[in-house]
Amino acid sequence: MAKVVCFGEIMLRLAPPGYLRFEQANAFEVVYGGGEANVCVSAANYGLDAAFVTKVPDNPIGQAAVNEMRRYGVDTTHMARGGERLGIYFCEKGASQRPSKVVYDRKYSSISTARKEDFDWDKIFKGAQWFHFTGITPALSDSAAEAVLESCKKAKEHGLTVSCDLNFRKNLWTSEKAGKVMAAYMPYVDVAIANEEDAEKVFGIKAQNTDVTGGSLSHEGYKDVAKQLKDRFGFKTVAITLRGSISASDNNWAAMLYQDDQYHFSRSYPIHIVDRVGGGDSFAGGLIYAMLSDYSAKDSLEFAVAASCLKHSIEGDHNHVTVGEVKTLMAGDGSGRVQR
Amino acid sequence: MAKVVCFGEIMLRLAPPGYLRFEQANAFEVVYGGGEANVCVSAANYGLDAAFVTKVPDNPIGQAAVNEMRRYGVDTTHMARGGERLGIYFCEKGASQRPSKVVYDRKYSSISTARKEDFDWDKIFKGAQWFHFTGITPALSDSAAEAVLESCKKAKEHGLTVSCDLNFRKNLWTSEKAGKVMAAYMPYVDVAIANEEDAEKVFGIKAQNTDVTGGSLSHEGYKDVAKQLKDRFGFKTVAITLRGSISASDNNWAAMLYQDDQYHFSRSYPIHIVDRVGGGDSFAGGLIYAMLSDYSAKDSLEFAVAASCLKHSIEGDHNHVTVGEVKTLMAGDGSGRVQR
Amino acid sequence: MAKVVCFGEIMLRLAPPGYLRFEQANAFEVVYGGGEANVCVSAANYGLDAAFVTKVPDNPIGQAAVNEMRRYGVDTTHMARGGERLGIYFCEKGASQRPSKVVYDRKYSSISTARKEDFDWDKIFKGAQWFHFTGITPALSDSAAEAVLESCKKAKEHGLTVSCDLNFRKNLWTSEKAGKVMAAYMPYVDVAIANEEDAEKVFGIKAQNTDVTGGSLSHEGYKDVAKQLKDRFGFKTVAITLRGSISASDNNWAAMLYQDDQYHFSRSYPIHIVDRVGGGDSFAGGLIYAMLSDYSAKDSLEFAVAASCLKHSIEGDHNHVTVGEVKTLMAGDGSGRVQR
Amino acid sequence: MAKVVCFGEIMLRLAPPGYLRFEQANAFEVVYGGGEANVCVSAANYGLDAAFVTKVPDNPIGQAAVNEMRRYGVDTTHMARGGERLGIYFCEKGASQRPSKVVYDRKYSSISTARKEDFDWDKIFKGAQWFHFTGITPALSDSAAEAVLESCKKAKEHGLTVSCDLNFRKNLWTSEKAGKVMAAYMPYVDVAIANEEDAEKVFGIKAQNTDVTGGSLSHEGYKDVAKQLKDRFGFKTVAITLRGSISASDNNWAAMLYQDDQYHFSRSYPIHIVDRVGGGDSFAGGLIYAMLSDYSAKDSLEFAVAASCLKHSIEGDHNHVTVGEVKTLMAGDGSGRVQR
Amino acid sequence: MAKVVCFGEIMLRLAPPGYLRFEQANAFEVVYGGGEANVCVSAANYGLDAAFVTKVPDNPIGQAAVNEMRRYGVDTTHMARGGERLGIYFCEKGASQRPSKVVYDRKYSSISTARKEDFDWDKIFKGAQWFHFTGITPALSDSAAEAVLESCKKAKEHGLTVSCDLNFRKNLWTSEKAGKVMAAYMPYVDVAIANEEDAEKVFGIKAQNTDVTGGSLSHEGYKDVAKQLKDRFGFKTVAITLRGSISASDNNWAAMLYQDDQYHFSRSYPIHIVDRVGGGDSFAGGLIYAMLSDYSAKDSLEFAVAASCLKHSIEGDHNHVTVGEVKTLMAGDGSGRVQR
Amino acid sequence: MAKVVCFGEIMLRLAPPGYLRFEQANAFEVVYGGGEANVCVSAANYGLDAAFVTKVPDNPIGQAAVNEMRRYGVDTTHMARGGERLGIYFCEKGASQRPSKVVYDRKYSSISTARKEDFDWDKIFKGAQWFHFTGITPALSDSAAEAVLESCKKAKEHGLTVSCDLNFRKNLWTSEKAGKVMAAYMPYVDVAIANEEDAEKVFGIKAQNTDVTGGSLSHEGYKDVAKQLKDRFGFKTVAITLRGSISASDNNWAAMLYQDDQYHFSRSYPIHIVDRVGGGDSFAGGLIYAMLSDYSAKDSLEFAVAASCLKHSIEGDHNHVTVGEVKTLMAGDGSGRVQR
Repeated sequence: MAKVVCFGEIMLRLAPPGYLRFEQANAFEVVYGGGEANVCVSAANYGLDAAFVTKVPDNPIGQAAVNEMRRYGVDTTHMARGGERLGIYFCEKGASQRPSKVVYDRKYSSISTARKEDFDWDKIFKGAQWFHFTGITPALSDSAAEAVLESCKKAKEHGLTVSCDLNFRKNLWTSEKAGKVMAAYMPYVDVAIANEEDAEKVFGIKAQNTDVTGGSLSHEGYKDVAKQLKDRFGFKTVAITLRGSISASDNNWAAMLYQDDQYHFSRSYPIHIVDRVGGGDSFAGGLIYAMLSDYSAKDSLEFAVAASCLKHSIEGDHNHVTVGEVKTLMAGDGSGRVQR
Repeated sequence: MAKVVCFGEIMLRLAPPGYLRFEQANAFEVVYGGGEANVCVSAANYGLDAAFVTKVPDNPIGQAAVNEMRRYGVDTTHMARGGERLGIYFCEKGASQRPSKVVYDRKYSSISTARKEDFDWDKIFKGAQWFHFTGITPALSDSAAEAVLESCKKAKEHGLTVSCDLNFRKNLWTSEKAGKVMAAYMPYVDVAIANEEDAEKVFGIKAQNTDVTGGSLSHEGYKDVAKQLKDRFGFKTVAITLRGSISASDNNWAAMLYQDDQYHFSRSYPIHIVDRVGGGDSFAGGLIYAMLSDYSAKDSLEFAVAASCLKHSIEGDHNHVTVGEVKTLMAGDGSGRVQR
Repeated sequence: MAKVVCFGEIMLRLAPPGYLRFEQANAFEVVYGGGEANVCVSAANYGLDAAFVTKVPDNPIGQAAVNEMRRYGVDTTHMARGGERLGIYFCEKGASQRPSKVVYDRKYSSISTARKEDFDWDKIFKGAQWFHFTGITPALSDSAAEAVLESCKKAKEHGLTVSCDLNFRKNLWTSEKAGKVMAAYMPYVDVAIANEEDAEKVFGIKAQNTDVTGGSLSHEGYKDVAKQLKDRFGFKTVAITLRGSISASDNNWAAMLYQDDQYHFSRSYPIHIVDRVGGGDSFAGGLIYAMLSDYSAKDSLEFAVAASCLKHSIEGDHNHVTVGEVKTLMAGDGSGRVQR
Repeated sequence: MAKVVCFGEIMLRLAPPGYLRFEQANAFEVVYGGGEANVCVSAANYGLDAAFVTKVPDNPIGQAAVNEMRRYGVDTTHMARGGERLGIYFCEKGASQRPSKVVYDRKYSSISTARKEDFDWDKIFKGAQWFHFTGITPALSDSAAEAVLESCKKAKEHGLTVSCDLNFRKNLWTSEKAGKVMAAYMPYVDVAIANEEDAEKVFGIKAQNTDVTGGSLSHEGYKDVAKQLKDRFGFKTVAITLRGSISASDNNWAAMLYQDDQYHFSRSYPIHIVDRVGGGDSFAGGLIYAMLSDYSAKDSLEFAVAASCLKHSIEGDHNHVTVGEVKTLMAGDGSGRVQR
Repeated sequence: MAKVVCFGEIMLRLAPPGYLRFEQANAFEVVYGGGEANVCVSAANYGLDAAFVTKVPDNPIGQAAVNEMRRYGVDTTHMARGGERLGIYFCEKGASQRPSKVVYDRKYSSISTARKEDFDWDKIFKGAQWFHFTGITPALSDSAAEAVLESCKKAKEHGLTVSCDLNFRKNLWTSEKAGKVMAAYMPYVDVAIANEEDAEKVFGIKAQNTDVTGGSLSHEGYKDVAKQLKDRFGFKTVAITLRGSISASDNNWAAMLYQDDQYHFSRSYPIHIVDRVGGGDSFAGGLIYAMLSDYSAKDSLEFAVAASCLKHSIEGDHNHVTVGEVKTLMAGDGSGRVQR
Repeated sequence: MAKVVCFGEIMLRLAPPGYLRFEQANAFEVVYGGGEANVCVSAANYGLDAAFVTKVPDNPIGQAAVNEMRRYGVDTTHMARGGERLGIYFCEKGASQRPSKVVYDRKYSSISTARKEDFDWDKIFKGAQWFHFTGITPALSDSAAEAVLESCKKAKEHGLTVSCDLNFRKNLWTSEKAGKVMAAYMPYVDVAIANEEDAEKVFGIKAQNTDVTGGSLSHEGYKDVAKQLKDRFGFKTVAITLRGSISASDNNWAAMLYQDDQYHFSRSYPIHIVDRVGGGDSFAGGLIYAMLSDYSAKDSLEFAVAASCLKHSIEGDHNHVTVGEVKTLMAGDGSGRVQR
């Protein structure tokens, strides 16, 4: 059983029930999630030995976050305790033409105060094969950014495959700062993951001589972006998720993968959305599993896309699906017939 | 901040959770709403100074209705107290081919016993620019109908713009009676609002020489109806909402507006429905806001349609959206991408 | 008021709220249902005098199942009490590409220990016109299979019309055993009901010389299956439901009926699914009502299909619709306009 | 199995969850109950053949009330349909020093418009041994009062034992009117049931020469009241419930029974209250069962008190307990040890 | 209608349902409250013209807090908008020997960043009679402490009566700092309110020569404390609440008031607790109402104690009771008999 | 961190919300617990390295049970997978004089089909200090009883301290069989735990020459029972929990411990009950922790009693308390004052 380590944030997510708006709610549903935590739960679901590294406050809310990760099989023994608070995000589910709305209250969180001394990477990486981080953690604070750099260096020292989801968050930092900080990590990264906007927002990489217009996603354009990313940073693999937003209720979902000078485009799934938060994270989780399981590039892509397609039908941040369920969809059965 | 006054009914709405039928429910979700109350909440949401005038019983259920209006920023200081009961309506949400079902229990309500003496219109209209009422209130009782007539006269005396949503309710009165009573109010009305059936049901106005068939809405037919309404009653503006019911889950939604001898047809929105009650009311609310904000006729129409499109994605009777959210949709972004 | 007797299982259904997966749920919604129980509730809803025959444990959970049947007007006085437990099934609602999932825990249930001596069929069938059973009950145990045989014989003695829904359950028995046991019942059966797979799974009856491919349902193929069924067993009527699964959220729903050497194909309904469990049962319930009401073959089919179309919009196993609601849809109004 | 007929009202009860006040609630829990309906459910629970006679509106809310009665085994085939609405009562649960609060919205209910012609008493009373009514129904309207008188006469013609719970409701009528109307029924009544205040409120019967002070209940005083009731109206049995209200959370509960010139006082139970609505009704239900089962006067009293003691621990209007559970408490086991 | 102004914090309160611990909850119930906000809602409930002054973030969570205050009739037009976040507190309800637990996450809240320039006190205090603040707000930050000082000065300039609840919070500051900061406000304070510990924690004032032991509250000791407070700061009135904690489920509740050299001790209420948060605030709210209504000192005390006794039976931070309800309890009726 | 191994059953617990009876519930709250699982969660909560050994079915319901244990920090890697079903128990909460009611549906569970070969005890016990089992597991089946014997032998081989909670379940076996089977385990047991009835039910050990009457617990009698147990089986420690059931809402709770020829009696706690299931298990969990932490006999007893006192205030089977919380209560603070 391969071991995967994810480093980043876990937040308390507070969401009004159903389609209520914030002002209408007299209760919030509670989930504990975050970009890297979600990837880690995916990995654990698939049977990998998944460890999550973060910093949570030493209070019952921090403990509840730990418990949620444990519940889904994640190793939480390397989490640091301390700081003042668990980051929070409020999440209102959209429908039809009304978009989902996220209000962040993550400033001053424990993870944002994490320092590289908080983590014993030699111990954490012992026996591990893969390390995953995202562009969110370094955006939280300079000390967190330093801790990420340290983790990347150590991961390489230990010979791990390193994946990074660019995950640009405009509320946390500017494109300028993001580009500078992220560039320092890229030499350690083997697998770069991005959505259809991240490459431009973080590194200013746009498709050359290609007209990338809104609704319709241009294959040629994304090929070009992937190639530029690889050429600039020397990634082994570049994966880009392609979301076509028809409405808050309906999306199209696909991805492309560039590896060994080959461009692969996945099937595209028309999705009726239950909860789209964590969609990209579930793609990363699926990709890591598939690559660690020595799937071909094409199959790794299709596994990751099918896995993340299913995530959109699942409540909460995490993707609770089995390898078997993903494979069934990969094999073409999206008919939704009852499984008895 | 312009001041709007709405006069009419507020009811206790009792709805089974989710898609349960009445007989399956062991709880009812509680909302306090009604045609005119819904318009008033819309106006308050957009930042107008909105006052609601009605009569509620002097008991905790009546008080809860007052509280709900206050919660959303409505001025409730002009509500009369008295009578025996708050009107109730039971509302079961439909899905797919099963229609939503409304069971009214509004007879003998406090507002139906309202008399014109219950309201001090001079005080109420002080500083106001707009008055809104609908065809529901006069249908409740003769004394309520008299109170409406009084309100119209007073509104004109105070120089207010008066809007009326025809809102024919077949359970409350006959077309004959409606036509007679409503005709007396029309001289005071500047802006007439109707859905695709009201003009015929209330005033017997059908499209001339036009084949208005079920599913497909005929532009020419509605132009003709609007023109007839204006010609007969001298309205400044006529607005007609155009609902295309595909199923209880999916509708198309658009509207037309006739003003200054110009016919405007709005964009049409394909809607996946969360709650369609109050859809028409949210159109009226949006129209009032836009007209008071000196939008052009076309923009007023588009604002009202976008606002009411969004209403269909929101639980309850009221439309909880901001001006910014409506404008975003008006500007064409209905993709439902998460707003962070 | 004609009397209908249904014989079979009622189970405790436990379902996570909304779209939660089993592992996420901290509560299960409770429904008491089962293939034959669902048919019986349908019959009672339409105003028939419906009696349900089963065996439930003599404990509060068994009593709760009895209560649920009584609540919807079913005569429960012929239920046997005893055995160890009520069968349970866990039911997780699917969405989009994620299928619904059913986990059965029905082994050792009271009904599986039922013996033919547990039921006084002469008393039960007194005054009855129709008897309904399915292929589920005999699959539970040999003694239950014997009890079913006894019930069929007695029903014929009493001159009842007998309907059987083949309802193959691969978890309960093999096709081989099913074919053998079910064949013994067929001589007593007047109306055979099946879904698009049952005939093959139970009796190995496939369309001759017809290419029945996945998504698209072949009219010719089903005609052939119906004819083979009738030719082999001498049924008066054969009805086959035709489900087109687009996804767990959207299905197409139709059926065909073969009687008097005529093949009838129903309208096809595009369905946005609320709860599809019991869809086939509601078809059987509608068919029984329509045939007992002397509808024509075509009208019986359309009534049954419209009834079961509506079931898909209703939570739980049972179909809570009135004759009037079904007729409205049959007459073509599936627009979902609010009924006030 | 003896047959009991109860005649009266069933209402929709709407209650905020837990201890929320009306103004705080965004949902109401739904129960269908009423004085006589509650007695009828008790009788059915104990295995009696219990029929409930009332009038409900011909709409889904009325049907839901019917369903709730059926669910608990009550024969609803004699209910009349018609009128405008089901009576409603809003019920807020008190705690500690804050009393429970009931807001009635029962005016204009279907049962209040019932006329004696609505019921075929000869058919209803066929095979019955006992008839129960209360002082609530005649208070609803003059026509309902007439219907009650008719029911009493017919019950006597059919040789039934007749019980009446005086149940004075000050919101429905005055003591003067109550005294006059109720007096006309008393000649038909065998068993009179009252709480500690009813005799005075309805018939002006107070304890003679006895100082009945608030908190402490005077045995001598209640003996005197019971004797006066019997002497004036010739009852066979008089039962008076004795509630000692310590707070909304804690009560003492006991009763006395006067029969054959003997006064019996029951055990007194210190009760921690879950829901006290229907406490008196469950006493009547227990008394009817015990007397029909030929319990001694003392045992009948103790059964009724133990039954109604248990009711206070059960949510809703109805008393869901078995004969065995009541007997266990009667036998002295109120220790609450877990029953496995 | 007298006008009261309260200045302080409003927070988002997140509480697990029922008696669940934080780690068990998958939803949090939502209330918006805080020491001064709770007093303000009390004042509005009693019919006073109550305005709340605070600073909330300009996001939907801040708006929801505003809405909750509006719902209960509070004037929110003077609230400042800005800052980063709404303070949060997590609140777990205790029972029996397990205490309630509060986890604060209020640091960096908008109100803690409030500066005196944020509020136009001349406008706010126009027409007001009373100003209330507590020891919590100045503990949040130095700038908030300055704003409080400014508010006190302005209140005096406008001739208002000023009340202060000492409300020491050990998580926010030390006794040393509290004593120093609070002392500066005291010259402006007319009515000082404290619980049984505050005087010692803030000002080091302990009973002289009195043995104040845990469970039993010493009358002489509290007299002495009140006198010392008055002597040191020159208050017109000193009120001290006296809570006897038997367990998390049961408390005794009383208070004393010192004015015009008279000591008044209230009735003591044995309370079965529903929610004790806001108990002290509801005392202050009641006291302000009673004093503004010119009740005698003794009656003011009894009104405040009865009001706050009732608060313990109500969910949430706020006290939702009417003047009539408080007076009924004051008059001695705590029997909890149902009010119909 | 000492390692504890618990071996036994984990079941799905289904409980109606609040105080609803089974027949009233339309949802069941879900908890996964069982005698030994509950002890294991306690151990994990206190920071011990706790491993749970059981057998669960290889389906999502079994997985959910695993997840619940993981959530609270239990090592689940030694659980066997297989068998047909997870045992279920239905649990209805009592109140006042109405007892809680448990309906078991645990027959044919996976654990009941466990065989000694299913577990690799050498691996499981590696590094462990303590082994705990109860009298429930051997009562499930002969093969489970054999597995328990094997576990005892292996535990002794590995030098572990072995504790056994007698936990007699009359629904599972007779006293005769229990006595015989359990006697075979006793030679391996160091610490015997029982409630006030188990010794008699399992081993026929009653107090000699002592009048053990119901309500009042006799110290002398329990001393005698403890001594007999020790004398017969040679236990190092005997602990007996002493529950005084006043009602389903209120209990007194205490325990005694016999060790080194010393009898220790704990404080007695008057408990207002939230959920008493798992009370005895939490005592065992506390005792194990305290003894492993080298507390004195008296302190071990007091820790265990305080821990289990707190359990009664917590929903579900498990005891979610920290060592600090238990120590606070042990030190005498049961006042329930809010912890901020």
